[in-house]
Amino acid sequence: MSVDAPLPSAPRLIIDLDAVRANYQLMAEHSGIANTGAAIKADSYGLGMNEIAPLLRDAGCSSFFCAHVSEAMTARQILGHDVEIFVLNGVCFGEAPLMRQKQLIPVLSTPEHIALWGEAGENAPAALHFDTGMNRLGLAFDENIMTQTKDLNLNLLMSHLACASEPAHPLNQIQCKRFEDIKKAYPGLRASLANSAGVLLGKAYHHDLTRPGIALYGGAPLEEGGPALTPVARIEAPILQVCVLKKGETVGYGASFTAPEDMRIATAAIGYADGLPRAASPGGFGRIAGQAVPLIGRVSMDLSVFDVSALTQPLQAGDTVMVLGGDLDALAKTAKTLSYEILTGLGPRFVREYKGNGA
Amino acid sequence: MSVDAPLPSAPRLIIDLDAVRANYQLMAEHSGIANTGAAIKADSYGLGMNEIAPLLRDAGCSSFFCAHVSEAMTARQILGHDVEIFVLNGVCFGEAPLMRQKQLIPVLSTPEHIALWGEAGENAPAALHFDTGMNRLGLAFDENIMTQTKDLNLNLLMSHLACASEPAHPLNQIQCKRFEDIKKAYPGLRASLANSAGVLLGKAYHHDLTRPGIALYGGAPLEEGGPALTPVARIEAPILQVCVLKKGETVGYGASFTAPEDMRIATAAIGYADGLPRAASPGGFGRIAGQAVPLIGRVSMDLSVFDVSALTQPLQAGDTVMVLGGDLDALAKTAKTLSYEILTGLGPRFVREYKGNGA
Repeated sequence: MSVDAPLPSAPRLIIDLDAVRANYQLMAEHSGIANTGAAIKADSYGLGMNEIAPLLRDAGCSSFFCAHVSEAMTARQILGHDVEIFVLNGVCFGEAPLMRQKQLIPVLSTPEHIALWGEAGENAPAALHFDTGMNRLGLAFDENIMTQTKDLNLNLLMSHLACASEPAHPLNQIQCKRFEDIKKAYPGLRASLANSAGVLLGKAYHHDLTRPGIALYGGAPLEEGGPALTPVARIEAPILQVCVLKKGETVGYGASFTAPEDMRIATAAIGYADGLPRAASPGGFGRIAGQAVPLIGRVSMDLSVFDVSALTQPLQAGDTVMVLGGDLDALAKTAKTLSYEILTGLGPRFVREYKGNGA
Repeated sequence: MSVDAPLPSAPRLIIDLDAVRANYQLMAEHSGIANTGAAIKADSYGLGMNEIAPLLRDAGCSSFFCAHVSEAMTARQILGHDVEIFVLNGVCFGEAPLMRQKQLIPVLSTPEHIALWGEAGENAPAALHFDTGMNRLGLAFDENIMTQTKDLNLNLLMSHLACASEPAHPLNQIQCKRFEDIKKAYPGLRASLANSAGVLLGKAYHHDLTRPGIALYGGAPLEEGGPALTPVARIEAPILQVCVLKKGETVGYGASFTAPEDMRIATAAIGYADGLPRAASPGGFGRIAGQAVPLIGRVSMDLSVFDVSALTQPLQAGDTVMVLGGDLDALAKTAKTLSYEILTGLGPRFVREYKGNGA
């Protein structure tokens, strides 16, 4: 076995680029006549900006959203100079010259951002982000800000929805209305409000540019319902041991699971260091040949134990258990979190394999 | 600003190597006459095997524990050939020749492991891991196994404690007794049972070699009490915006926090993509100049919001908020997890700085 070949003992993370493309196209359809950008921050939600960003560009995306300057610099290197790259976290002291050199567009969200970008001169383009109810980052809309921004080379007006995952939440319409009011103060300026969930809220939320993120990566944007997305990421973890657990014996740290009867269990090389949340057990599951196999006991750092008693096929060390795939949102719910946190928490120990897109 | 200088907008992860050394020495003192190894799996619990492993070697550690073959190969490259490196996940089909070439010692935990290592010949050293009550990975002790292992070049007998973090848990003594019984079948063979918590359970658990992990990295091994460890990792996240939140306004996704009165809030460039768990809010906190500042609203992917109303000092964008440090275990408890999951979940976006150890 060569040192460079993937080791059989390593868990694999398989990322389906065709699925990302299909999800982007679906978001583009739902975006109507608006252009469809893409959030590729946090390494494309943990799945690899290097592989995913060029695919999105080739699928027609020309507006990319990063959080950090460092991410945007990487994106510029990957994507070349024919796309626009926004930096959602804005600009910090000393960073403006570098951002201009790399043609990165800061999303100006505070009076300090406006001052820093303005002082650095040259009139390079910037986006303006008003807070309409998220109260996290963003400008308060007033006459003062309009005066401060009148000499800037603005190319996008933005805000961000707080509750779009719950279409019936009253804050959605309030934010929509506030954004409309702000738009009137910047006539002719391109506008963007919708994340993935916002895309699904309908035409009133689309404006000129949508910027889906989670939907591209296969996570459901809405708490309930929404269009069927194609799963993007799945883990294939090698099974190290299959054995019998006697009735009354306990499993794992804290002896938190006690076998109610003799069971067959499988221990796989996947743990919370790989991003399988500790909170995914009890309640979470993997799949073997499509059949659900429940997690039992506590997920530990490098290993997890599955109940394979109900499996109708033979199983042995060296076989694999699948995690995530179409079960991403269900697993996130069990772990009392979101698909977003699962994906961005995937660890560095996987052998990463990209499928599709000609790969 | 050069492209290579850390950007002011980037969160920093500061790792104190002197603290790791102090914690190792404390574990060595508590290990009595046993040798003290170190668990460096999962990139030294997320904090950097490349920097930490050589420091531990220089502090006197000569037995290192990895989970995966890939980690052990990296460790061998970092540490040279004068230390022993164990692979806790054992050996998979096809990996034995590579492991022998790199002088890696598999921890044989299943009959398949024994067969794979035996068949590969050459009589290279191996550890034998019996299950004494963890029911996760490990051999069942019987005559059959003794026959199968009699021709192996064994250099360590191991088991692993399931409930050592709870010293009063009855399973500790049961596992201790079972391990003593197994030892009798392998007279003269070096033995190892204790992780960090096991070290603190006392002499009966130490045997010849202890293998602390979490304590080295500043996480408390016991659910309550235990010796004072030196904090190892702290995050310094840049504050992007300080503003007033009006009474009745909500913060962040889901509008989950409503201001009970006018408040001052600070938004910092740290989110769950960096490893600050989404479950850390509400209840978690950071610190500014030593003063606790509570997280409010939901932690989002790239940003978190802190209540800075009670701060007695001026605060502005560009200042930083500290997370983790001496608050690691408290934060983990709030997030209903363990320090282990927090540390191994730290993300790739930090500028990592190592302090101490001559650095």
